[in-house]
Amino acid sequence: MYTVGDYLLDRLHELGIEEIFGVPGDYNLQFLDQIISREDMKWIGNANELNASYMADGYARTKKAAAFLTTFGVGELSAINGLAGSYAENLPVVEIVGSPTSKVQNDGKFVHHTLADGDFKHFMKMHEPVTAARTLLTAENATYEIDRVLSQLLKERKPVYINLPVDVAAAKAEKPALSLEKESSTTNTTEQVILSKIEESLKNAQKPVVIAGHEVISFGLEKTVTQFVSETKLPITTLNFGKSAVDESLPSFLGIYNGKLSEISLKNFVESADFILMLGVKLTDSSTGAFTHHLDENKMISLNIDEGIIFNKVVEDFDFRAVVSSLSELKGIEYEGQYIDKQYEEFIPSSAPLSQDRLWQAVESLTQSNETIVAEQGTSFFGASTIFLKSNSRFIGQPLWGSIGYTFPAALGSQIADKESRHLLFIGDGSLQLTVQELGLSIREKLNPICFIINNDGYTVEREIHGPTQSYNDIPMWNYSKLPETFGATEDRVVSKIVRTENEFVSVMKEAQADVNRMYWIELVLEKEDAPKLLKKMGKLFAEQNK
Amino acid sequence: MYTVGDYLLDRLHELGIEEIFGVPGDYNLQFLDQIISREDMKWIGNANELNASYMADGYARTKKAAAFLTTFGVGELSAINGLAGSYAENLPVVEIVGSPTSKVQNDGKFVHHTLADGDFKHFMKMHEPVTAARTLLTAENATYEIDRVLSQLLKERKPVYINLPVDVAAAKAEKPALSLEKESSTTNTTEQVILSKIEESLKNAQKPVVIAGHEVISFGLEKTVTQFVSETKLPITTLNFGKSAVDESLPSFLGIYNGKLSEISLKNFVESADFILMLGVKLTDSSTGAFTHHLDENKMISLNIDEGIIFNKVVEDFDFRAVVSSLSELKGIEYEGQYIDKQYEEFIPSSAPLSQDRLWQAVESLTQSNETIVAEQGTSFFGASTIFLKSNSRFIGQPLWGSIGYTFPAALGSQIADKESRHLLFIGDGSLQLTVQELGLSIREKLNPICFIINNDGYTVEREIHGPTQSYNDIPMWNYSKLPETFGATEDRVVSKIVRTENEFVSVMKEAQADVNRMYWIELVLEKEDAPKLLKKMGKLFAEQNK
Repeated sequence: MYTVGDYLLDRLHELGIEEIFGVPGDYNLQFLDQIISREDMKWIGNANELNASYMADGYARTKKAAAFLTTFGVGELSAINGLAGSYAENLPVVEIVGSPTSKVQNDGKFVHHTLADGDFKHFMKMHEPVTAARTLLTAENATYEIDRVLSQLLKERKPVYINLPVDVAAAKAEKPALSLEKESSTTNTTEQVILSKIEESLKNAQKPVVIAGHEVISFGLEKTVTQFVSETKLPITTLNFGKSAVDESLPSFLGIYNGKLSEISLKNFVESADFILMLGVKLTDSSTGAFTHHLDENKMISLNIDEGIIFNKVVEDFDFRAVVSSLSELKGIEYEGQYIDKQYEEFIPSSAPLSQDRLWQAVESLTQSNETIVAEQGTSFFGASTIFLKSNSRFIGQPLWGSIGYTFPAALGSQIADKESRHLLFIGDGSLQLTVQELGLSIREKLNPICFIINNDGYTVEREIHGPTQSYNDIPMWNYSKLPETFGATEDRVVSKIVRTENEFVSVMKEAQADVNRMYWIELVLEKEDAPKLLKKMGKLFAEQNK
Repeated sequence: MYTVGDYLLDRLHELGIEEIFGVPGDYNLQFLDQIISREDMKWIGNANELNASYMADGYARTKKAAAFLTTFGVGELSAINGLAGSYAENLPVVEIVGSPTSKVQNDGKFVHHTLADGDFKHFMKMHEPVTAARTLLTAENATYEIDRVLSQLLKERKPVYINLPVDVAAAKAEKPALSLEKESSTTNTTEQVILSKIEESLKNAQKPVVIAGHEVISFGLEKTVTQFVSETKLPITTLNFGKSAVDESLPSFLGIYNGKLSEISLKNFVESADFILMLGVKLTDSSTGAFTHHLDENKMISLNIDEGIIFNKVVEDFDFRAVVSSLSELKGIEYEGQYIDKQYEEFIPSSAPLSQDRLWQAVESLTQSNETIVAEQGTSFFGASTIFLKSNSRFIGQPLWGSIGYTFPAALGSQIADKESRHLLFIGDGSLQLTVQELGLSIREKLNPICFIINNDGYTVEREIHGPTQSYNDIPMWNYSKLPETFGATEDRVVSKIVRTENEFVSVMKEAQADVNRMYWIELVLEKEDAPKLLKKMGKLFAEQNK
């Protein structure tokens, strides 16, 4: 019998979802049977639900949609912070919550995983601020409601919430007749007006600049944008909140714009532009050097998912994706001006202890094409976000939501979504401690990321903002290099190393990049007070903001 | 200068709180300075926020109030499941959320840890269903609002939420003039009526029984109830949701009532009572053998925090604590009837592999006075909840909310709250994986619990409900015995053992109980399909409930 569960899984598969994350619970076990019985879907069981939501977020960044499954109450609330991050940073993630039978819910029974007050809608309500749509499925409304919330997910690129009672998952349903996503093949009038304004402005500009942001990635438009600036030779920058929205190996890629924390030549270039085209950009504190950006709105067309601003006039009712996809059709645009000098320094390692600034120079020099760099919001993000990536690379960070511990599961989720792109994770000791248990999953699933654990004995990013020597920024000292063995790894699957000097770093990184069949777990021992230059500056700006 | 932060900490101290749990973040660092500068307050930094909320819940069970601190957005949402558990099971926990300055919030800035939509009230709103009161502090309202929400916490014994902007923590305040809690020294008319009804009913009853529930523990009334039944010799039972509400070494303690899962003699005794006095009881599925209880409401007086039911008539506007505290003043009540035969079997170990049923017999036989047994909702809870505890013991579980992974941090939190009571934790491998990182904290804080890790290779409780051989109930196999060393322990602080047979179990348990200066980490290797008898029965009932 074809069921609601089958229908939901068919729809998820249509979105490109081939793996579902989550944690079993007694209200989702029957639906789990349906998942694991399929050839086209794999169940990836997590150690806990927050990690599942982080993994789904990472997967969605790379595969442009993701789903995870929890049980009612306890499971969904454990995951809600991860979902909120997906909401803040525009990642299309489906949360499916297995819930008690419709009868138990309608009768208001005092069952486990509830507040025992007979009300089964509390938790769906708690999801309102962090989901684009929510639904409680019944046998009658299920197929309509599934399509409704998934269409909303595609439109807003934000998470949705599906409450699936045990009995509804098993109820009879009809197979979908039509496909879910309506691709807009033609542009409407508003979209044509926007495109002609862009065309005209670019033709008239002497010093144009394109700024790409995170929404380009949410819609999977990275290649589209890359093609557009590649053909027109237009200078392009991204925020760190949107890094890798364009291929950074392009000659016209300027680097990361970050208000007064930008490289000075980049800052001058961007801020003196006579026309700015912003695509899917959101200006938040951590991506603008704490609001020190100077971008002239009188010279700007800015397009976002929900609205556009054309030289200070708001426009709505256009399809962001349709407009960005049509940019390449604009004719007669070719930039012939200068770019800025990019300083590529060759990294020559020494026997000196590894320092933060030298670490990131080394990474920039050694990173290869077709890699994914994942950088935890902390020293890693501030170090890694400014390096120039090689061609066909991807960058994952979380500068707006900034939930520490996020990147370890996110890196694993993204690695599962794209097994061909080697993932390099940079995470601090303090952050790793939040989500370390997914190491077991990485070993079980035979993933091969290269994980760098920056051991500098505490919360360095917090030390830079406040309390450099306060005890609350200390953390317990673990034996990081023993973690793989303890979590079940054998040497033929995971290589564990400790690195202290520049020479060791270069040698181990090269070894890891060459050995694609094993996971690498590399502890980088750094000084407690050391931090990337950028973080030191950012810490001061954030301390100001807290006054 | 005396500040709002000082005021809040003075009030928390007044509630008996001497330790504050949590995770630093850039919006709470200044308040952290205030915490660590005090002589009468200790900061206990957690590995993550969910664990902090679980630890606070455990601390509140033992010390009758607790507090934890997170940062805005990311931190509070990571912890919300733990807070929901405290709400469901009536534990008074204060969550303090360090938030951006009032100016940043009023200006609606797009700062990190927000949804970047200018609205800073989303997360407080998300806390509505799981807190008794919430407040956003300003310099003007702070002392009034702190008192308001803490009074509500004392009244309902449920969590409250305090949003503390960076600048408000540092704002000037006046010291509290009056103490917070108004102890009601006299009983009002409603309370006197209730007490006289109870007195009359007990005097007339031939076969009375008292059933105590979790709310007795929420209010710290265990000794009061123990004194009452000790003096009157009244037969008493508790639900597992309320176990240790009375001293179980009393001759009149009958055991745990659990609907048709009760011992048959206990079931008959309770269900044939001619008067039932229920104190702070909530009848939920996991504490009534999936609603198979038969308790005659025509013969019942049931008192809860929010209402009472006297022979089917609802009464309100009385103080639960005042009534329970006055029970001992009732005169002329002395039960002279029979109890039931309790079967104490002496445990004689053999060289046989340890089985679930034999394990719990051994624990019952070896447990000592003044211990705290903490049992994870899974095989451990179903095994441990039926054993008879020795005098002055405490039991911690979470049968209503049932969030797996909860007990490891909860045991550590409770151990910190009462360092004199040796804590024995029983937790399964699947559950431990959710929250394992607090092992680092236990080592750093030099705690000495005895932790039993039941390694049976997966989610046994789920296997009993559905999918005994399905892959989703498997989990990665860790080297559990290596965890302490990996998380930073040395042998002089933590003893790690693996136990496979009955003889080994008895010998290791005795060694651990005698060695009070070290933590014990004991892996119990059990068969995958083995489960306590009670769990097997419960699994079948829960599977029925899911049909």
